[in-house]
Amino acid sequence: MGKEKDKSNEGASEKYENFNEWYNEIVEEAGLCDKRYPVKGMNIWTPYGWKLMQNIDSETRKLVNATDHQEVKFPLLVPQKEFEKEADHIAGFEDEVYWVTRAGRNELDIPLLLRPTSETAMYPIFDLWVRSHADLPLKIYQMVNVFRYETKQTKAFMRMREFHFFEAHTCHATEEGAERQIEEDLEIMEKLSKRLCMPYLSLVRTDWDKFPGAEYSVGADSLMPTGRTLQMAGIHQYKTNFSKAYDITFEDEEGEHKNVYQTTYGMAERLVGAIVAIHGDDKGLVFPPDIAPLQVRIIPIIYGDEEKIMDYCLDIKESLERLGIEVDIDDSDERPGSKFYEAEMKGIPVRLDIGSDEVDQKTVTLVRRDTGEKRTVDREELLDEISSTFKAMQEEMYEKAEEELESNIEDIEDISEIQKEKIYRGGWCGEEACGQEIEDITERDILGTPFDEEGFEGKCINCDENTETVIYLSKTH
Amino acid sequence: MGKEKDKSNEGASEKYENFNEWYNEIVEEAGLCDKRYPVKGMNIWTPYGWKLMQNIDSETRKLVNATDHQEVKFPLLVPQKEFEKEADHIAGFEDEVYWVTRAGRNELDIPLLLRPTSETAMYPIFDLWVRSHADLPLKIYQMVNVFRYETKQTKAFMRMREFHFFEAHTCHATEEGAERQIEEDLEIMEKLSKRLCMPYLSLVRTDWDKFPGAEYSVGADSLMPTGRTLQMAGIHQYKTNFSKAYDITFEDEEGEHKNVYQTTYGMAERLVGAIVAIHGDDKGLVFPPDIAPLQVRIIPIIYGDEEKIMDYCLDIKESLERLGIEVDIDDSDERPGSKFYEAEMKGIPVRLDIGSDEVDQKTVTLVRRDTGEKRTVDREELLDEISSTFKAMQEEMYEKAEEELESNIEDIEDISEIQKEKIYRGGWCGEEACGQEIEDITERDILGTPFDEEGFEGKCINCDENTETVIYLSKTH
Repeated sequence: MGKEKDKSNEGASEKYENFNEWYNEIVEEAGLCDKRYPVKGMNIWTPYGWKLMQNIDSETRKLVNATDHQEVKFPLLVPQKEFEKEADHIAGFEDEVYWVTRAGRNELDIPLLLRPTSETAMYPIFDLWVRSHADLPLKIYQMVNVFRYETKQTKAFMRMREFHFFEAHTCHATEEGAERQIEEDLEIMEKLSKRLCMPYLSLVRTDWDKFPGAEYSVGADSLMPTGRTLQMAGIHQYKTNFSKAYDITFEDEEGEHKNVYQTTYGMAERLVGAIVAIHGDDKGLVFPPDIAPLQVRIIPIIYGDEEKIMDYCLDIKESLERLGIEVDIDDSDERPGSKFYEAEMKGIPVRLDIGSDEVDQKTVTLVRRDTGEKRTVDREELLDEISSTFKAMQEEMYEKAEEELESNIEDIEDISEIQKEKIYRGGWCGEEACGQEIEDITERDILGTPFDEEGFEGKCINCDENTETVIYLSKTH
Repeated sequence: MGKEKDKSNEGASEKYENFNEWYNEIVEEAGLCDKRYPVKGMNIWTPYGWKLMQNIDSETRKLVNATDHQEVKFPLLVPQKEFEKEADHIAGFEDEVYWVTRAGRNELDIPLLLRPTSETAMYPIFDLWVRSHADLPLKIYQMVNVFRYETKQTKAFMRMREFHFFEAHTCHATEEGAERQIEEDLEIMEKLSKRLCMPYLSLVRTDWDKFPGAEYSVGADSLMPTGRTLQMAGIHQYKTNFSKAYDITFEDEEGEHKNVYQTTYGMAERLVGAIVAIHGDDKGLVFPPDIAPLQVRIIPIIYGDEEKIMDYCLDIKESLERLGIEVDIDDSDERPGSKFYEAEMKGIPVRLDIGSDEVDQKTVTLVRRDTGEKRTVDREELLDEISSTFKAMQEEMYEKAEEELESNIEDIEDISEIQKEKIYRGGWCGEEACGQEIEDITERDILGTPFDEEGFEGKCINCDENTETVIYLSKTH
């Protein structure tokens, strides 16, 4: 059902037919950002968008605090010599960093770079924080602005030159400890994705596509309405690659000095872009209630006794606020039609329409943003109804997106079958040369192999070699 | 009483005798920051310090949200040409800004500066946001990292080159509207200061000491243990100085285009430094409960039945957590003495000592950090006792600091009376030349005149001219 429904949506939909225009317009029209800032790739977070990002941060904080991560904040500027310690990492980022070379009227002796991510800011300090095995594991995170001089076309939330970034960094005494951390990160990602209603695939990147300096990287990829994928998060096993370069050691129980094993987990404001893209429709945004900047909007429909209606609305607003629900009343002079339009555009999960009928009958008309379903609810049952509507929306929005993801994955046996913009799944011999040939011929990226084994047996889609390795491919945003 | 008590403290106290060493040590020993980051003037926020800053931010947010300010986030980097639009503002900041001149392998065509404050980032956009009187007042704020290339010696939280900053910016249709905003800002500051237990003086700065570009500035100055003052906040009336430079206009009800009137309100991480300095003692930090990163620490004192004591502690911890209190148990292997030492050093407002006596008698020993008062409390009354202890601490810590501030203000009639490191109050003729002479001769800053009139009548402390203007003077941090 999901599949057919999605396909029929696709045919009629601006979002599916002209995704880029739809997306670029909606983020501004719904008030998530202002793109008129006079530096390319740097947008302004307007109040509505920033509230959404703060809600996402708050969900992330709950999950990482519950797993004993501690929040810190490191300086933005990194001295050149610290940046240059890990060779692969420099190579991966040196074309993308902004350099501060002057301060006041002075040229700086040592240029400072704006963090593109904070390994090189943190790791010189980690050796001071980690002395013995008793200091491990070290699990910290920060939520900060980072800078990457993107050369590709920029896009609100999805590819920016300054962007909001969550980064967790951990140190462990053993490789097993670091491996368990990767599992924990994937559990956090799984829980967070339920709050965001954002299904994804966890894929171990190819060696040529891993994070610069990592031993291996796991990407969390979501499906966009284009049939392309967007990476939502990166979880990276560094082993001792950085701890050797930055000399981060600890004294183990036998008094021996060893390098720590490290991992990182990064997510960016791209999560906002993905929520917009996955759940939005031609009427505007659709937010999952758990993270919506505004969860309920009350719309008074006034033809008769204004005061009576407004009192009723205010009473409802207060009762919802007491439950901690984010609610407002649209008491502007606009006509109901344009109030509905705005509430839909802004993706407010639940709308309560209240006119004199509702007041007289002690009811409200409750409208769900995702399905458009409209029903009359008794005032007395309203709080329960809203709470169950939120719960249903969280579940159904996730399921709908999951069906769309699954219905866009196609199993193939040969690269010649790759034609559409969707996700393909097939065998790969594991040879880098063959893999890069697959990418060249298909003009797709190999997203990687599933983090959880799938028990595949088949042939490489390019060279026909027998293999137990399965890969996912797609075009990427 | 307050005065005598303070003086006797001063005599015996490391904090009062060697403030700089005391301060520099305590911020690191208590775990508020790490000063070993390899760029001068840029420290690392460690978890305990960052939690404190977040708590202060959260109190600030409540107050500014309640007055209809909206939170936004502007980009960090500002193009040179936007920076150069308001002459006084450039002159005030050009020696202090960091410049990004390179990105990747390219020299940038237009250098970008790191915001030292965000007027020049925001105001080019304000004209797009404000079209008509219906868009006014515009009241926004952000909490961000800002950068100033300080040439004076840097000091944790008090004078940094990168620091955490709250900045509110407003636009109004009339001068009266902007004046009312200044009053509202001062009310917010007053409420916040009660939460931080941080009394201060609201003083209108001299013309030669106002914010670059402002019509006038009000500083909120707190007294440090040195007898010098520290500016905690700046509230600025811009009138149309910036709106003319940045062409921010609106259409009034008659269809006429006019420049908006603007104000700003800024506070920095300096608030953390002030709390440390004002409330700390020779045993360590002392935090007001309303903003303490950790409000209660339970210390099990185990000689006998460990399990019984730990169960009792856990039960108490859970009952406190249910009330939203930040609480932990120090279950380390350290001896009680060093646990007490740490709890004191970290400034945790309330300590609960629990040994077998307490378990048997269903009590706890409650210790207040500010007074050291220790008393036995029935388990059943504990929640009420903690809540009333928090309340008492908030009030008494504020009052104690207020007494210290007041007892350090001395009225004088002539500049020859200025000898000590304290705050002096006296007449000033109002002439800039005479005022600057006062500053030169006394080696003090004129902090300004009280925002609320004091009904002064007297003579200028320098030129003996009759005057109704009273000024406050002190050395400043």
